[in-house]
Amino acid sequence: MASIANVIHDLTLEQKAGLVSGEDFWYTKAVKDAALPRMMLTDGPSGLRKQSEDADALGLGQSVPAVSFPVSALTACTFDRQALFELGRNLGVAAHANNVGVLLGPGVNIKRNPLAGRNFEYFSEDPYLAGELGAQYVKGVQSENVGVSVKHFAANNRENQRFTNSANMDQRTLREIYLTAFERIVKQAQPASVMCAYNKINGITSSENKYLLTDILRDEWNFSGVVLSDWGAVSDHVAALKAGLDLEMPGKGDLSTNEIVTAVRSGALDEATLDRAVNRILTMIMTYLPENSAADYYDKDQQHQFARKLASESMVLLKNDHAILPLKPKEKVLLVGELAKKPRFQGGGSSHVAPYKVTTLTMAARQIDNAVTYLPGYHLVDDQVDAKLEKAVLEAAKDADKIVVVVGLPERMESEGFDKTRNTLPMNQNHLLDTLIAQGLDVIVVLQNGAPIAMPWVNRVSAILETYLAGEAVGEATFDVLTGKVNPSGKLAETFPIRLQDTPNYLTFDRNADDENYREGIFVGYRYYDTKHVAALFPFGYGLSYTTFIYQNLAVKVGVDTVTVSFTIKNSGEIAGQEIAQIYVSNQTSRIEKPAKELKQFIKVSLEPGQQKAVSVELDRRAFSWFNERTNHFQVDNGHYEIIVAASSVEPRLQKTIQLMWAPQQAAPLTEDTYLSTLLARDDGADLLKQSGLNIIVDQLTKTGNNQALFANMPLRALIMMGAKQEQLKQLFKLARA
Amino acid sequence: MASIANVIHDLTLEQKAGLVSGEDFWYTKAVKDAALPRMMLTDGPSGLRKQSEDADALGLGQSVPAVSFPVSALTACTFDRQALFELGRNLGVAAHANNVGVLLGPGVNIKRNPLAGRNFEYFSEDPYLAGELGAQYVKGVQSENVGVSVKHFAANNRENQRFTNSANMDQRTLREIYLTAFERIVKQAQPASVMCAYNKINGITSSENKYLLTDILRDEWNFSGVVLSDWGAVSDHVAALKAGLDLEMPGKGDLSTNEIVTAVRSGALDEATLDRAVNRILTMIMTYLPENSAADYYDKDQQHQFARKLASESMVLLKNDHAILPLKPKEKVLLVGELAKKPRFQGGGSSHVAPYKVTTLTMAARQIDNAVTYLPGYHLVDDQVDAKLEKAVLEAAKDADKIVVVVGLPERMESEGFDKTRNTLPMNQNHLLDTLIAQGLDVIVVLQNGAPIAMPWVNRVSAILETYLAGEAVGEATFDVLTGKVNPSGKLAETFPIRLQDTPNYLTFDRNADDENYREGIFVGYRYYDTKHVAALFPFGYGLSYTTFIYQNLAVKVGVDTVTVSFTIKNSGEIAGQEIAQIYVSNQTSRIEKPAKELKQFIKVSLEPGQQKAVSVELDRRAFSWFNERTNHFQVDNGHYEIIVAASSVEPRLQKTIQLMWAPQQAAPLTEDTYLSTLLARDDGADLLKQSGLNIIVDQLTKTGNNQALFANMPLRALIMMGAKQEQLKQLFKLARA
Repeated sequence: MASIANVIHDLTLEQKAGLVSGEDFWYTKAVKDAALPRMMLTDGPSGLRKQSEDADALGLGQSVPAVSFPVSALTACTFDRQALFELGRNLGVAAHANNVGVLLGPGVNIKRNPLAGRNFEYFSEDPYLAGELGAQYVKGVQSENVGVSVKHFAANNRENQRFTNSANMDQRTLREIYLTAFERIVKQAQPASVMCAYNKINGITSSENKYLLTDILRDEWNFSGVVLSDWGAVSDHVAALKAGLDLEMPGKGDLSTNEIVTAVRSGALDEATLDRAVNRILTMIMTYLPENSAADYYDKDQQHQFARKLASESMVLLKNDHAILPLKPKEKVLLVGELAKKPRFQGGGSSHVAPYKVTTLTMAARQIDNAVTYLPGYHLVDDQVDAKLEKAVLEAAKDADKIVVVVGLPERMESEGFDKTRNTLPMNQNHLLDTLIAQGLDVIVVLQNGAPIAMPWVNRVSAILETYLAGEAVGEATFDVLTGKVNPSGKLAETFPIRLQDTPNYLTFDRNADDENYREGIFVGYRYYDTKHVAALFPFGYGLSYTTFIYQNLAVKVGVDTVTVSFTIKNSGEIAGQEIAQIYVSNQTSRIEKPAKELKQFIKVSLEPGQQKAVSVELDRRAFSWFNERTNHFQVDNGHYEIIVAASSVEPRLQKTIQLMWAPQQAAPLTEDTYLSTLLARDDGADLLKQSGLNIIVDQLTKTGNNQALFANMPLRALIMMGAKQEQLKQLFKLARA
Repeated sequence: MASIANVIHDLTLEQKAGLVSGEDFWYTKAVKDAALPRMMLTDGPSGLRKQSEDADALGLGQSVPAVSFPVSALTACTFDRQALFELGRNLGVAAHANNVGVLLGPGVNIKRNPLAGRNFEYFSEDPYLAGELGAQYVKGVQSENVGVSVKHFAANNRENQRFTNSANMDQRTLREIYLTAFERIVKQAQPASVMCAYNKINGITSSENKYLLTDILRDEWNFSGVVLSDWGAVSDHVAALKAGLDLEMPGKGDLSTNEIVTAVRSGALDEATLDRAVNRILTMIMTYLPENSAADYYDKDQQHQFARKLASESMVLLKNDHAILPLKPKEKVLLVGELAKKPRFQGGGSSHVAPYKVTTLTMAARQIDNAVTYLPGYHLVDDQVDAKLEKAVLEAAKDADKIVVVVGLPERMESEGFDKTRNTLPMNQNHLLDTLIAQGLDVIVVLQNGAPIAMPWVNRVSAILETYLAGEAVGEATFDVLTGKVNPSGKLAETFPIRLQDTPNYLTFDRNADDENYREGIFVGYRYYDTKHVAALFPFGYGLSYTTFIYQNLAVKVGVDTVTVSFTIKNSGEIAGQEIAQIYVSNQTSRIEKPAKELKQFIKVSLEPGQQKAVSVELDRRAFSWFNERTNHFQVDNGHYEIIVAASSVEPRLQKTIQLMWAPQQAAPLTEDTYLSTLLARDDGADLLKQSGLNIIVDQLTKTGNNQALFANMPLRALIMMGAKQEQLKQLFKLARA
């Protein structure tokens, strides 16, 4: 085949102009005369959503059946890189088998607020975790020779007015929080594509944001793939191409082609810019165009089993008083809640899959050893309490050994496309729980929800299992955990607040139609709760197991530009289990605003009863860095850092303080703005003052009284008004620099 | 006398260059050849600090005796415009009698954080209150023909690195919170001078900040006086003159003159700019140069009595269980705490006065009807618990009817020039209180402190009287309130937080050496606590009385550009008292980030027992406005506003919602970025779509399912990708605009 450069050379302007927009909702454009094929792009962070041929033009209709995997909000709770790679691989197989060249996902935006409509699609409030898991997911998909488009680049954190709203923040926040996951993925996994977001950042539409799409993404991170637009994110097609966008999706038909042709002809758009975009698009198509022969091994039943395993290993046991879980064999179980029969297992919007086969909790209940009775308890269709349904549950409870109540947010309350206005369960669900609790019954709660909910009954129920939106194997996976077939090992990838008003951006989130002001800055999620000492309902990194673990033998070795953290974990209980160890770094050094600690590594370990394993992780330079806006670089400061090995963000297990001397040793230069306190911190500070004839200053600073702190907090230039002569100051600078 | 323009015309360049800097620490420069006199400037927000002739060069030594009035942190608690005018008048008399032409103060910066070292010198966390009280203070001083220099312009809210730190914030925050008090004062009271602050704002040093000193101060607010520098705030003298600074203080001697001469000669500084500054300085000197004949009526004893009255009417009774206060005649009182004998009654730094005569609490105790025994209870010199002192108190407590414990922050912990690192009382003081409480004793706490402190014993003591730094009449004023001679009527002008970590800027205050990032934005003080539902130890506007008040008969009348709020207050108790009514406005209308409510008026009413008064206040346009950064103007939106008449920020008494239609009625123009939801909110929205052939959109929006919210949240430009034709959109715009 001819080189892409040669192909482009032979294309007409109209042909090239056509290529930088989609043919329709789901395809790139073919150029028949040049024998260039089209390629399909398809939604799918959590399962393939390939549009049926007969679907309506809006692109949100029927799609071909595919296995629905757990959403990212749940899979993130695995803290398991390998599991995410496997998820990606499964998706890649499905895509390839369906002739899809590029899968639109994963979504790796940061969770800022529990009300954000798209939280379920995103991994975490922590950028390191989102980046590590996202990178493995991408590697998994691309290992099957299917490209991904990582989305939504960048700072896509609210749905209301999402096409026009501006995400306003300082550069440090942008770099440390909102770009980090993308950066890790681009550098580690070389995704085929990055999808630019709808929203503006600091007033500039993402699709026209050269700083974002070119300066950072390409020039700094060396991204060589295609930047495509979120569906409808292009407002000014020509401006977008100039800024670094390659592919407008979907196309606007002839309108798209004509506006590019006109721009090139008028000189408003350099043809070389168009060629660059065409080159990238053709390269992507050539690389990822599916071969017909592929994916003989697409086995939906096998994928369903993987979905089940992934879901059960992700679910988070939040509470388990008196070891009420797991269910014991032969216990009679009362299973309550319409969600047990009509589970909410996936999100609404572009990630919505036509599932291959859904196993509800009522279906899965028939496969276990226990006798299970089901009762609805409440309606999903509205919030009204149904006294008859509740009474039936109270009646049946008399015969039950255990009561499992499934509650959650119906899809009418939570979807892509709009933000929530509250995070409370429907009134009838909370009422049912209150009614059961009031009767003194021990209640096991199973949650189905896309984002943190309020739990007014948290202290009055016996157990809580968070299953988020668990994919089509929801029923089997939930019972795997409830029965102890799978020992729960998920930990929360986000903080559950006690009250919405406790969240870091309660005062600003969704309050302004035009601007979303990221006033909390870097203090997102646990970075806020930890540092401001705000209690959480359930903290980041938290989750229970049916067994227990002991952390021991911490050793920290400082290398030339890595720090190696070694320790042992022991399963001190009676059954096998997995533990997620989290390694946080606390910067004790830099004179900047900073979180109490930040997650910089994690490791998941499988342990038989009584077994102990030695594990070791590495922390790189970046783990100790902060982004300095003045130099536009990540920076490591020399000084002390605490390494915290923890079972959650609030459960430190092992701690050690190290000293890093990685930065070039350089005394800050003495200037007129240098404070007297800084000069006096030098061993020779007082001597230098005296040698310059500034005894009056030294006298003032050693006089008794209350003014020393005031004087020490003066810059050298202010000494002039304290009686210093200019010549004396000159002498001081000369001596100090000698 | 010759016109100032003529005088300037006759001056040499050297003479003019000399005039724009001080002669020394406290004087403007005289030009003997031109018979131009020098004029003295002197510190003094809370009393005259006129340097003695024999003081040292540093300007912080001995000063002439003058009455020390309560600090602004206390006087603000009066919420009494007339009282502040009287304070200003007294200061003006003292200044005039001492040949001082300009008094440096008041300080009207906003209190952002309890740790800020200079809080005691400032009025409030609320800009309206600070502006109203500051304006009356200025009018009072200037009524005696003494000028003031309002300080520190602007955003001078921390002491650490105060010469170089940058206060970084958005324009709305700057305008609504940090400039408002200055704006009110400049417009209402025409101060002789404004003192520019040390700090930078958004990276630009205040003394060189043209936007601040010229664009806003002079061009927008029509300020015609002198801008002088805080002492040592000038870093680049020439740049400062260009930006709008007139007078560098103190002078740097020949250095100051030479740098200006050189700059004019080299063309770096326009001579007209120099002339402008000289003109303003000479005008100020001519206007405010004291006449020798003045101020025969300077009577320090009378001023001391005023200081006593002002202090007693400002003090805030925070707690008074079972009416333990006032002290009953003949009750035996045990007075505890070294602060009773060595009171802290003024702040440290430039506001430090050599008092005329201090009345300590032990001295004042001798003048009352009660038998008072004094014991130190703790040492001030350090934090160490002294068991012997505590034991003596416990012993003496057996014979006492009432126990008054005076505690507070010693000056070593709180002063201009540095910020605090904690807001806790010295350990020995808390220990003493705990010891007394543990014995079951009812304790009356009297506080002496410059800013909110932590009160771990708040729920275990019987009464708390906040006296801040009450001036030299501290002893008499405190006993006036304790004995009921004065019925307390002060209310807090700032929020007392339960914990430091509850403060709005806990994560950022003083954390960064170079930058102070005002991340909380407009959510300062009660604007934060109220809106984020964070409980306060004692809220803004709160204070008790020995009597009770009833609010009734609210009437709100909307005028052409004012709203008149009328209501009645009745004294429903047995003794005379004063009540501060606060009028808050809650904006229910604007689609922006906004506080739950904001103080926009207040009124203080004196009432005999059983007496009722009808009062009325006006709210102007500004009371309903917010600062729109995009238009650079304050803006009123049409819609609903709630008027809340309240006894404190958490004690609403009367409420009424009004509708304002003050803005020009204008439908937002339809653009490609207009959201479908906005179009559909029009009565003719669906019809317009149909008439444009866009039935497909209407169908989608009326289909059952979960996607309506998603679709309605799309801009019109995105309809293209939903199948709309460009012609149809054009038709839609045409019809909609018709």
